[in-house]
Amino acid sequence: MTHALPPPLAISMGDPAGIGPEIIAKVFRDQPQAAQGCFVAGDLAVMRRAAAAIRGPHGVDLPVAEIETSADAWRVPARCIPLLQATPALEPPAWGAVSAAAGRAAADCVVWSARAALRGELAGVVTAPLHKQALAAAGVRFPGHTELLQAEAAAHVGCPVERMPVRMMLANDELRTVLVSIHVALRAAIAAVTFDNVLQTVRIAHEALSRALGRAPRIGVAGLNPHAGEGGLMGREEVEVIAPAVQAACKAGMLASGPLPPDTIFMRARNVAQHPGEFDVVVAMYHDQGLIPVKYLGVEQGVNVTLGLPLVRTSPDHGTAFDLAGTGRADPASLLAAIRMARQLAG
Amino acid sequence: MTHALPPPLAISMGDPAGIGPEIIAKVFRDQPQAAQGCFVAGDLAVMRRAAAAIRGPHGVDLPVAEIETSADAWRVPARCIPLLQATPALEPPAWGAVSAAAGRAAADCVVWSARAALRGELAGVVTAPLHKQALAAAGVRFPGHTELLQAEAAAHVGCPVERMPVRMMLANDELRTVLVSIHVALRAAIAAVTFDNVLQTVRIAHEALSRALGRAPRIGVAGLNPHAGEGGLMGREEVEVIAPAVQAACKAGMLASGPLPPDTIFMRARNVAQHPGEFDVVVAMYHDQGLIPVKYLGVEQGVNVTLGLPLVRTSPDHGTAFDLAGTGRADPASLLAAIRMARQLAG
Repeated sequence: MTHALPPPLAISMGDPAGIGPEIIAKVFRDQPQAAQGCFVAGDLAVMRRAAAAIRGPHGVDLPVAEIETSADAWRVPARCIPLLQATPALEPPAWGAVSAAAGRAAADCVVWSARAALRGELAGVVTAPLHKQALAAAGVRFPGHTELLQAEAAAHVGCPVERMPVRMMLANDELRTVLVSIHVALRAAIAAVTFDNVLQTVRIAHEALSRALGRAPRIGVAGLNPHAGEGGLMGREEVEVIAPAVQAACKAGMLASGPLPPDTIFMRARNVAQHPGEFDVVVAMYHDQGLIPVKYLGVEQGVNVTLGLPLVRTSPDHGTAFDLAGTGRADPASLLAAIRMARQLAG
Repeated sequence: MTHALPPPLAISMGDPAGIGPEIIAKVFRDQPQAAQGCFVAGDLAVMRRAAAAIRGPHGVDLPVAEIETSADAWRVPARCIPLLQATPALEPPAWGAVSAAAGRAAADCVVWSARAALRGELAGVVTAPLHKQALAAAGVRFPGHTELLQAEAAAHVGCPVERMPVRMMLANDELRTVLVSIHVALRAAIAAVTFDNVLQTVRIAHEALSRALGRAPRIGVAGLNPHAGEGGLMGREEVEVIAPAVQAACKAGMLASGPLPPDTIFMRARNVAQHPGEFDVVVAMYHDQGLIPVKYLGVEQGVNVTLGLPLVRTSPDHGTAFDLAGTGRADPASLLAAIRMARQLAG
């Protein structure tokens, strides 16, 4: 009896001058089980250099095996890096240098992976870090991964980008949080706490985690103000906006609770052996409300997930670390967590 | 050779219908070493009832010994509760009921303790929880401890209350945070991020912790916006207000750093064996920024401290828990931590 193999997972190599290629190589070397069924959407010379960068004093470089199609990822033996050439062959750029060539190659690999995922060839895409300046130098008109993926998904579905709302989820072993808004000033974040935005965030969290957990997730919705406003005494957003959005979500069959006091909702959601969490995910009203607790115990295990797209996308919660690139010292823990999370979300 | 005994610590009994008296009794019963040199500013009948409430199935009640002056606290043997009658003798009110008599007695004990501390008789005051409605029913014109103590201190010093600025510090074993503002809507909290308020918060933190640590504390100052505004891209408060306040603090000889990204400053300040903290205290720009990380690992160890007063004041980070009062099941951990913190702050 044979089982059909699940679709493979693409890991886009990220900026070739950053730590992306070498942390990918480390995962293939040190975590062969987690790496099974994964392949790199990247460049052969860049990945060979990365394999050399993590070589021990008497070691032999990890081999890089070129594959033609995603499905071939499963045929490559453990401790060998399956590489699909997703960009024109590249002269590896100097470590730690911003260059248009590096930005172009990195973007190519993301676009290739997104399209393969949208065609249904992949379980998901794990993206190693890009460098925003390199991207801009290459003339890519999107500031980062999220916008690039959003545009590809909208084009695939045939809708305007505005109709493809996404939300950022940050997760580690014990906590998941989905944010109503991300990189805006706190004043603007307050303005973004609208009925539509809150309800959409709850819905996006519900849909993504229903697939991953195989059941409706228990969603805790945080308030905006201290003590969730205490009935309107300290801010009216809970009464006027958040509570109605939570009610609408419940009416639509989602398991949403709130608005709850922000200073204890994360403690209540925290899921550890001696303290099972009350919620599977917390909807946070702004960037730091959600990121402070997710990062409090350390950033090594943090995973960044884009929810709302018709594909699974995770990434490590760190950047290109140009100062470390090529030294072989970068920590692959967050990338490894991103790979595991992508498998989980693919359901 | 004899050592002079340090001044004693008063524990005000809190609302007699709440859990205050019984958690105090538990500390004297279970933590005799921590309780040494402490006494209760309270009522004899209330504390006798509390001792009975925590009686085991075959136990004998902890004795309550009435003392005449603070200094007598040291003469009372371990596992006996020294009680200074700080309010007219009271008929203990029903557990869990709001009453003017209970509110009046609780306020009397706080005022008595504050005055003794201001006279220099005490190392500090640890306040068991009040009930705000009972306080209001008694006609006390202050909403809670902080305002009551502030008024007493201002009267003692002979200045208007406005000249006696205070700040709330929340602390547990691994993190301390001092808040620029507390119980106001998030919009109002943003408006309260002014040069004067930030600098004053840094100064109050510096002065209180210099005494406690015997050296200048390393103060991390959080930004208000995501990534501390990224140079003005996501909000201008860091550039216009917080950075100038930090510079002014440094110029005045304080060890302040910032503004730092809010989502990692608490992780960086966290002080545990395997990860020594980079800062002794974090100045947080608003209530939840500071309270989310302090409460994340559990609220049992949290201590609330009022800084800025000419006396040491700590309290457990919970309320009267009227639903638990009289059952003997309330957890004294936060009160115990408050006693230890008061000793530490008294220097």
